[in-house]
Amino acid sequence: MIKAGIIGATGYAGGELVRLLLGHRDAKIVWYGSRSYIDKKYAEVYQNMFQLVEDVCRDDNMEQLADEVDVIFTATPQGLCASLVNEEILSKTKVIDLSADFRIKDVKVYEEWYKLEHKAPQFLDEAVYGLCEINREAVKQARLVANPGCYPTCSTLSIYPLLKEGIIDGNTVIIDAKSGTSGAGRGAKVDNLYCEVNENIKAYGVASHRHTPEIEEQLGYAAGYPMHINFTPHLVPMNRGILITAYASLKKDVTEEEVRAIYNKYYAKEKFVRVLENGACPQTRWVEGSNFVDVNFKIDPRTNRIIMMGAMDNLVKGAAGQAVQNMNLMFGLPEDEGLRMAPVFP
Amino acid sequence: MIKAGIIGATGYAGGELVRLLLGHRDAKIVWYGSRSYIDKKYAEVYQNMFQLVEDVCRDDNMEQLADEVDVIFTATPQGLCASLVNEEILSKTKVIDLSADFRIKDVKVYEEWYKLEHKAPQFLDEAVYGLCEINREAVKQARLVANPGCYPTCSTLSIYPLLKEGIIDGNTVIIDAKSGTSGAGRGAKVDNLYCEVNENIKAYGVASHRHTPEIEEQLGYAAGYPMHINFTPHLVPMNRGILITAYASLKKDVTEEEVRAIYNKYYAKEKFVRVLENGACPQTRWVEGSNFVDVNFKIDPRTNRIIMMGAMDNLVKGAAGQAVQNMNLMFGLPEDEGLRMAPVFP
Amino acid sequence: MIKAGIIGATGYAGGELVRLLLGHRDAKIVWYGSRSYIDKKYAEVYQNMFQLVEDVCRDDNMEQLADEVDVIFTATPQGLCASLVNEEILSKTKVIDLSADFRIKDVKVYEEWYKLEHKAPQFLDEAVYGLCEINREAVKQARLVANPGCYPTCSTLSIYPLLKEGIIDGNTVIIDAKSGTSGAGRGAKVDNLYCEVNENIKAYGVASHRHTPEIEEQLGYAAGYPMHINFTPHLVPMNRGILITAYASLKKDVTEEEVRAIYNKYYAKEKFVRVLENGACPQTRWVEGSNFVDVNFKIDPRTNRIIMMGAMDNLVKGAAGQAVQNMNLMFGLPEDEGLRMAPVFP
Amino acid sequence: MIKAGIIGATGYAGGELVRLLLGHRDAKIVWYGSRSYIDKKYAEVYQNMFQLVEDVCRDDNMEQLADEVDVIFTATPQGLCASLVNEEILSKTKVIDLSADFRIKDVKVYEEWYKLEHKAPQFLDEAVYGLCEINREAVKQARLVANPGCYPTCSTLSIYPLLKEGIIDGNTVIIDAKSGTSGAGRGAKVDNLYCEVNENIKAYGVASHRHTPEIEEQLGYAAGYPMHINFTPHLVPMNRGILITAYASLKKDVTEEEVRAIYNKYYAKEKFVRVLENGACPQTRWVEGSNFVDVNFKIDPRTNRIIMMGAMDNLVKGAAGQAVQNMNLMFGLPEDEGLRMAPVFP
Repeated sequence: MIKAGIIGATGYAGGELVRLLLGHRDAKIVWYGSRSYIDKKYAEVYQNMFQLVEDVCRDDNMEQLADEVDVIFTATPQGLCASLVNEEILSKTKVIDLSADFRIKDVKVYEEWYKLEHKAPQFLDEAVYGLCEINREAVKQARLVANPGCYPTCSTLSIYPLLKEGIIDGNTVIIDAKSGTSGAGRGAKVDNLYCEVNENIKAYGVASHRHTPEIEEQLGYAAGYPMHINFTPHLVPMNRGILITAYASLKKDVTEEEVRAIYNKYYAKEKFVRVLENGACPQTRWVEGSNFVDVNFKIDPRTNRIIMMGAMDNLVKGAAGQAVQNMNLMFGLPEDEGLRMAPVFP
Repeated sequence: MIKAGIIGATGYAGGELVRLLLGHRDAKIVWYGSRSYIDKKYAEVYQNMFQLVEDVCRDDNMEQLADEVDVIFTATPQGLCASLVNEEILSKTKVIDLSADFRIKDVKVYEEWYKLEHKAPQFLDEAVYGLCEINREAVKQARLVANPGCYPTCSTLSIYPLLKEGIIDGNTVIIDAKSGTSGAGRGAKVDNLYCEVNENIKAYGVASHRHTPEIEEQLGYAAGYPMHINFTPHLVPMNRGILITAYASLKKDVTEEEVRAIYNKYYAKEKFVRVLENGACPQTRWVEGSNFVDVNFKIDPRTNRIIMMGAMDNLVKGAAGQAVQNMNLMFGLPEDEGLRMAPVFP
Repeated sequence: MIKAGIIGATGYAGGELVRLLLGHRDAKIVWYGSRSYIDKKYAEVYQNMFQLVEDVCRDDNMEQLADEVDVIFTATPQGLCASLVNEEILSKTKVIDLSADFRIKDVKVYEEWYKLEHKAPQFLDEAVYGLCEINREAVKQARLVANPGCYPTCSTLSIYPLLKEGIIDGNTVIIDAKSGTSGAGRGAKVDNLYCEVNENIKAYGVASHRHTPEIEEQLGYAAGYPMHINFTPHLVPMNRGILITAYASLKKDVTEEEVRAIYNKYYAKEKFVRVLENGACPQTRWVEGSNFVDVNFKIDPRTNRIIMMGAMDNLVKGAAGQAVQNMNLMFGLPEDEGLRMAPVFP
Repeated sequence: MIKAGIIGATGYAGGELVRLLLGHRDAKIVWYGSRSYIDKKYAEVYQNMFQLVEDVCRDDNMEQLADEVDVIFTATPQGLCASLVNEEILSKTKVIDLSADFRIKDVKVYEEWYKLEHKAPQFLDEAVYGLCEINREAVKQARLVANPGCYPTCSTLSIYPLLKEGIIDGNTVIIDAKSGTSGAGRGAKVDNLYCEVNENIKAYGVASHRHTPEIEEQLGYAAGYPMHINFTPHLVPMNRGILITAYASLKKDVTEEEVRAIYNKYYAKEKFVRVLENGACPQTRWVEGSNFVDVNFKIDPRTNRIIMMGAMDNLVKGAAGQAVQNMNLMFGLPEDEGLRMAPVFP
């Protein structure tokens, strides 16, 4: 039985980790870290866990955690994990960081977009970008996994095969993304109040969102050349779900069958990526609560562009589910342990 | 492995049955019945099941089903199950009816409230009202289970102990209920369109809703005398969830501790009924996706009344989850098999 | 042209006042008070007012306001208006207080329920409870109007006629109320975040909500005796709207026609109270954005109770709209000036 | 007083027309046409109009209408207006068609995208495309106005100035659009049920939506050359609102100030187009219920593209409000008569 500790267990991603690990046969949570609610019963913060979790919230003592647990999940603000991790900790336990601290290999890019000094750049090389479908073998060997961002997960999985196969021109990629509000976190801000979000849609972080360089880096690996893309996230009045609609110019004449064959080449054996059938559009309602990413595409011969679409649950495949998937790989468990639940609809 | 057939698999309750049974270790669905979508792939109707369910929808041949399955779930409009069931079918297979056909013992009451002729009154005596927490032993022996209505489940479990113990006056009971929109079904009606339901709350079926006699019958068993209550359901702009707020006059001076002791007497050992702690109000968000019913109460000394509250997911404990719980009991399985998932939040 | 000052112009009720007064032919706002946003352009806080309002937010100097304006609206937390108002101010200007400070005549009741010391009890006698349909003549003469609470407005108008005419027993009145989330204000609290409110319904303030004594006082005037009621508010995932469902025992045999005649006796000539036709339930969607209260009822002969229902927009008739209606009365204007807009649907 | 007749008064756009015209000083509705509800009281279909509209719904006799009214609004499915209009009708009355029948000048394009035979191509030349800000003078002279589609209105107004001034390359334009659900109409379809739309976002009509050629035609006039664009609409769980996020490559080096100056050149004097301040993103909540279109932009030097954004209420500026604006122009009234209401928030 894997002993897991969560730092940041009372955020939305942390709460989802708790939900998923409660259903995991080979892992148990022994540390519910939450600076905001120290000594408060976890089930008083998340009343859905009443009678399921008896623990109280604790501070985030990473040294002690390293002695007591097999894996630490950090579901915390940017900068925290980098400020706490060190060689001794990594020699004792595995770390899966749900923040952005170890996702971007170039420390200058990180510091420019996140406006933070990176406190542990020495681990950037070692850290594995935990997009399981693409870096599976590396994840298995990792001590430190950078769990991908929500938008980058959905974007990369939707676009990667076509870039890798040279079908589309990387410098024409435009990603228009839409996210449910849980992606904005549980902080008490006026902008995230019910009446401000409900009956509204808006773009935010236009041409400046911090997931941009993360997506560019991952897509760049596929393309084989540096990429600059447009990425525009939008806030949607719903709890969960991310939909990305991506546009790119085709570099060659391809048929729908050929494109479908490419997606299938990469994903036919993947449990969590579903290439939808001809004509079906990914929709967030069909993946809610599950670890699936649904992808599909449409060729537009009028403009010689292809529209690529992907949908997933931002809290599952976009955060906690992918973290569990990474843990499974790191500990040699079936990759889908704890993640076999069907999507919840409606 | 129990072979299950579902008649009405493409309604919301039927869809939820599919979701739950996919996660059940000892049951598998072998018949996806749906008159509206015969020969269509189930996963094209409910795209969340893409790659999880390969079956096509079939007509509702109950004779054939009886030969092929161990249990038939009827998640169908009122009247259908009664028109199809017969001794031969019941001799071969178990039936769990999610409609109202066998919930009310008095055929006249049924026919008056449902405006239907009952086609199989001969089975009314035999049918067991499948409110597991109250009729557990009878359910274990049953061939035909009447799966309780959503409002009656939540109402009865919230009020039953206090009536049974003679704390409240049955003739003062008023139940003000609120339900998410999945309770209205998947029929294409203007009243259930997004723009009609969103940003709105309304009462409906005032003093005439068909769950009234069902609640009265069940509460009457607890009280030991016939009851007439007020029951007012409301439609709430959310997908899932039922909340009931019930009012009754106290028959004696009781303290909060005494009332809590009564609830605990009935529910402390129950897996799916959670008596919340002092001061906590049941909320639908804390039970969503799970089989829990959360209950609590507040004494109002100013009016000498008690306010009883209950929250549950109408599609789980209010329909498909309770049906699976009944199946588990009928087949000698652990009562919570397939129902151990934690509530999903947010 | 009436010059109006608003203290608390950046809360939801204050924002609605701005919207309504912008459409008022005989009033203009000359002071946008907001402690939180002093010196910030109002239209940067409420971007809907871009190019419609050029003013910046100002502090809440009531003395200066009294010199500069004809009427002050205080849309502020409890206690503030009472702490600022004095004889000199009232001698210069009229005050319409949207908080609870002057709604309850008995200072002890106020202090007990609001846990506040009342700073200006000397004006309680003078203050007029601004429920226009009931206190119209007094409002016309008033210097200081206590604008009624949202729940009390909807509750009182729905129940008043039947109590006044002695049809129902006041001590059996139970009010189950449901409100949209704008009623919870614009403060940055976790409980009011989108993801906490969406897909949820809950009761709150059970047997302890501060609108209870206000309702009891007003209904007591109708009944002619002191009343103790049950009042349970619920939070609904929608922006606007209040629905109340009230229950009471009938004191005499009445027909539907007789009850309807009573409602019509009180409301047939009222512009803002609509007695719906037989069988129609009040719904919040049909009054949104308007100053209407829709009321109706249903007699339940099985329990000898009557169910009374009322729906209105909590920010209009429940706050800003009624405040404008009061202003119109106080200044001798047509009562519906600035309030003639039809409800917005969907 | 202008006498107006509405054909299709019980759809969402028709209902909004009623709301707006009730607040119009110089127009009154004398004919509420609705095939679905003939002889039913209009206020029974739209209960918000109870006591405001006493009329019953009538069939759509256009000949009779032409004799009785000054202007006919057709808020009807595609094809109907073209099948009814003729020279005699146009000689007697003005027609404002909210359907697509007269929006596209090339009948072949219309027939290809709409899969309909055009029944009145002889009026295509005469019909004026009623985008008031661009075709104001022509509208004033028109007998037959083609009221623009919702997406085309928002898209064209957001992009037009930059194309007209040659700042962007028309063949790089990609429009990613998001709409509230009222845009899907009031037909009883499973896809538009509350539970299907809520907690979901999806693209639809990808590379095939019928507003594409309409946008291309209008933008083509600005560009001076034929355009082929990508247009992808999405369905958002909210009642009202359209947001468009458009991307295009810059043809020259421009500063933010220069681009802003261009927008101001076209819109500074427009009442209904608001060019937001630097950094502010258009949001649907800030225009709801009003006739405003909010536009803004962001230059992305990393990709040499510009992101153009526009938000409006699809039922007002995107349908009924623009129709009233057209009517005002056609009858020589102030352009904003009946349209001066501030946006409703929250």
